[in-house]
Amino acid sequence: MKIALAQYNYHVGNFEGNTSKIIHGIEEAKKRNADLVVFSELAVCGYPSADLLEFEEYIHKSYESLEKIAAHCTGIAAVVGAPDKNQGPKGKPLYNAAFFLSNKKITRVFHKGLLPNYDIFDEYRYFEPANQFQVLEYKNKRIALTICEDLWNLNDNPLYLQNPMDKLYKQGVDLMINIAASPFSWNHIYERKSMLSQNAATYNLPMFYVNQVGAQTDVIFDGGSMVINPQGEIVKELASFEEDLSIVELSRTLSSEGSRPIPSQDTDQKNERIYKALILGVKDYFQKLGFTKAILGLSGGIDSAVTMVIAAEALGAKNVLGVLMPGQFSSDHSIQDAQELAENLGSPYHTIQITKTAHTFEQHLHPWFKDTDFNVAEENIQARTRAVYLMALSNKFGHVLLNTSNKSEAAVGYGTLYGDMCGGMSVLGDLYKTEVFELARYINRKKRIIPQNSITKPPSAELRPDQKDADSLPEYNILDPILFEYIENRKGPEALYSMGFEQTMVDRVLKLVNYSEHKRFQTPPVLRVSLKSFGAGRKMPIVAKYL
Amino acid sequence: MKIALAQYNYHVGNFEGNTSKIIHGIEEAKKRNADLVVFSELAVCGYPSADLLEFEEYIHKSYESLEKIAAHCTGIAAVVGAPDKNQGPKGKPLYNAAFFLSNKKITRVFHKGLLPNYDIFDEYRYFEPANQFQVLEYKNKRIALTICEDLWNLNDNPLYLQNPMDKLYKQGVDLMINIAASPFSWNHIYERKSMLSQNAATYNLPMFYVNQVGAQTDVIFDGGSMVINPQGEIVKELASFEEDLSIVELSRTLSSEGSRPIPSQDTDQKNERIYKALILGVKDYFQKLGFTKAILGLSGGIDSAVTMVIAAEALGAKNVLGVLMPGQFSSDHSIQDAQELAENLGSPYHTIQITKTAHTFEQHLHPWFKDTDFNVAEENIQARTRAVYLMALSNKFGHVLLNTSNKSEAAVGYGTLYGDMCGGMSVLGDLYKTEVFELARYINRKKRIIPQNSITKPPSAELRPDQKDADSLPEYNILDPILFEYIENRKGPEALYSMGFEQTMVDRVLKLVNYSEHKRFQTPPVLRVSLKSFGAGRKMPIVAKYL
Repeated sequence: MKIALAQYNYHVGNFEGNTSKIIHGIEEAKKRNADLVVFSELAVCGYPSADLLEFEEYIHKSYESLEKIAAHCTGIAAVVGAPDKNQGPKGKPLYNAAFFLSNKKITRVFHKGLLPNYDIFDEYRYFEPANQFQVLEYKNKRIALTICEDLWNLNDNPLYLQNPMDKLYKQGVDLMINIAASPFSWNHIYERKSMLSQNAATYNLPMFYVNQVGAQTDVIFDGGSMVINPQGEIVKELASFEEDLSIVELSRTLSSEGSRPIPSQDTDQKNERIYKALILGVKDYFQKLGFTKAILGLSGGIDSAVTMVIAAEALGAKNVLGVLMPGQFSSDHSIQDAQELAENLGSPYHTIQITKTAHTFEQHLHPWFKDTDFNVAEENIQARTRAVYLMALSNKFGHVLLNTSNKSEAAVGYGTLYGDMCGGMSVLGDLYKTEVFELARYINRKKRIIPQNSITKPPSAELRPDQKDADSLPEYNILDPILFEYIENRKGPEALYSMGFEQTMVDRVLKLVNYSEHKRFQTPPVLRVSLKSFGAGRKMPIVAKYL
Repeated sequence: MKIALAQYNYHVGNFEGNTSKIIHGIEEAKKRNADLVVFSELAVCGYPSADLLEFEEYIHKSYESLEKIAAHCTGIAAVVGAPDKNQGPKGKPLYNAAFFLSNKKITRVFHKGLLPNYDIFDEYRYFEPANQFQVLEYKNKRIALTICEDLWNLNDNPLYLQNPMDKLYKQGVDLMINIAASPFSWNHIYERKSMLSQNAATYNLPMFYVNQVGAQTDVIFDGGSMVINPQGEIVKELASFEEDLSIVELSRTLSSEGSRPIPSQDTDQKNERIYKALILGVKDYFQKLGFTKAILGLSGGIDSAVTMVIAAEALGAKNVLGVLMPGQFSSDHSIQDAQELAENLGSPYHTIQITKTAHTFEQHLHPWFKDTDFNVAEENIQARTRAVYLMALSNKFGHVLLNTSNKSEAAVGYGTLYGDMCGGMSVLGDLYKTEVFELARYINRKKRIIPQNSITKPPSAELRPDQKDADSLPEYNILDPILFEYIENRKGPEALYSMGFEQTMVDRVLKLVNYSEHKRFQTPPVLRVSLKSFGAGRKMPIVAKYL
């Protein structure tokens, strides 16, 4: 039996576009003599569809699309992910389902049993979990067809009370198929492969795994669909970060020839993966929204430089407009560094002096500010003045403003709300400052695109004389590990002390993070590349007494 | 048996504060010879605690607090809500639990079976649902102790597969106790009472219901705890929107004397309820964050007027600073109306002319704007200039900026991101414009606080000559009903046409709503008073093809 793995980039709610992609995949698989073609989880409507799933018409359109798709299933069968109405008298109105299409009809439907409801996942919001599982018979093969999380309950402390594969295995199975929408995190790829391999080996069955590719606002799906043999080795791996369709003969999984073991966890490819993921994230955000041009403030610093390189790669250098906005405290080298970057890329740039505008604000505020000391109010006026310029250009000419904040800044609230925290999308908001430096060095690995000075000079907001980030914040090599343990690993203060972090430093950092929740509440969507990014995956109260 | 209902205002994560409130309640109930005192759901940590529940130390602190509370349970027993660790090998790490404290110890623990996971609720994110339920025996009475949603599965199309009360009832029960954290919605109060009454009547048992009071950032809890007799009549109802402790003798529920039926759904009190809820929302946001002073832009329009009245009621008129910022297109009457409002309230106000500042921006942008037509770019410069002034005063003097947008504007994106959409909190963001008018008339019912002109003149943003909202938007009495059906009732376009709404109007409105998701993503927390407010309860994708 020849099985086609169809790894596509869907657009949430775009039934017409998704349907024609799926039909194209079926026709392509037919041409190449496949017996079965498999598409990813909720492919018909796109994943995640969020509350669009609560609209009757949305579900109706999904069924209509399935009918259109089924009409092409002659001489081939297809597995397609889509929501299915719960016909029973009890429970949530929908199931997360895999439809088996053959002979121009929906022949069978399979429901997801394990619904992730943590981090960015909220499937229990929409779906009823299945608790009965049946094998699919096709061409004399017995197939255990599961959906994404259904396979993720193998460990010693399972999150779910049931294990669908155990129930299916007892019915007699020849191969496993899993359709997924498993998002990218740079440090999660090993875990995913390892879990698939563990399943294949545990049940001694070949595994055909089809994942979604493409970005849906903040969440990036990397693809990387694969076939694994019963020894847990990789027989075939599809492309990452792009669409792919590949056909594997089931018999190929019977021998280890040409297969390779799961690579051990390596971080060598971290920067390459993150770079590709962010480019895809920017590209899909613009393409799927119908925009072509980006704008961003260029400070001469590393964050705006890395953001601009990624945007230029995603949209074309000519479509990325840098705006230099020197103020009273900007250094000459900042302006030079920013110009050099734009010229290296071949991107257009404008220069606007903000000093006079900031002074106009200060003059009008003088009746109340009087002789108060220069403080964060005056600093923020500069950052907000820049935002007004950027947004004015954006509104006039149709550019989307890219935010250039990094995760360390966002974490400790070192940024101006309605100032440098503005933007339609945060490109680097899930990378700690130390990771932004790594990425900059990766970008410059062959050729100097980012000026060396942007990488080597001490980071500064340049909002007061001779300001350095290190005046207000711990050094990033001290700050970032504390942030990582607090944010990614949910370690409280006592846990951090006992890990050896210095108590006053921990208290200072955690206070900054906790007191910035109100700021982060209003930030743009952050392209997610870690296992815990700011946004929907991290829900912290604004009004609370923190640990 | 005397049962005390202790309805308190908790602060999320403030274990010290919450514990001392609970201990105070126990001592008060003891003094008044109660046998049992009942506190609300997750009282010890506060509801909702969000991802703070994922911190080991948070759960540890909660158990420590329970020990302290239990030490006061001599001669009285207490029911207290708190998280409980799942000791089993499978499932989510926590249960949402009711602890029974007596003889200075945790004597028994009861787990919630029905976990709401819709709208603002995401309990499946943290908790494992219980599927076994046991009766509590105390002083020769058999008590069915349940937690909030556990009672909400009585209808014909139940959302959950099980019904805890059915399981408990079979064990023999004398009375029901339900501890809740049931948030306020102006049109939900009848439904809540009716559901409680239906439970009491169905099982022919008295019901003691204790709800949380107070606001947690955007979510307002109204209290209104109550005792219902087996006939489904109200025996006792505690205060709404404030703390209360009341003791009811169980035998009082045996007769209908002094009880009253559930009032039929009436909307008479709509404005009073909303007014009180919003005042509580503002008050708690400031008190729990430790702020005392608010600032807002006063346009002379109705939204800023109503916002200021609510803020003055919540914080004291002297603590609310209005800022008048006339621009090139502001009308004289707008300035007069704004001044009159501040003077009626006795609140301070400043006046800042923005014309010169806006012109400074335009001059610096001239090299690129050149002879382009005046459009949304220039309009937004004015709104954003105002935001910079407001935030500068906020940063300098420590006021929290209040946002004055209403739900109609927020829905159709009629507002400037980083301009009038700024603020630490949106006070009116869950009220349609027509509801803001109703509320203004309610506020003025006895005495004219809001200038009549602010209520009667046609709404205008005054960002271009002779601008009126009606130039860009449908009239609010046409717009708001469409928005209500689309947002609150999730009716898609086809459903709206068939309800009789005009097709081109529906298409126009829905397009505006859908294309504004990116703006709403960055708005401040909205005080929730309806069943579907913008914020965590409504998750719509930014990048999507909409219905």
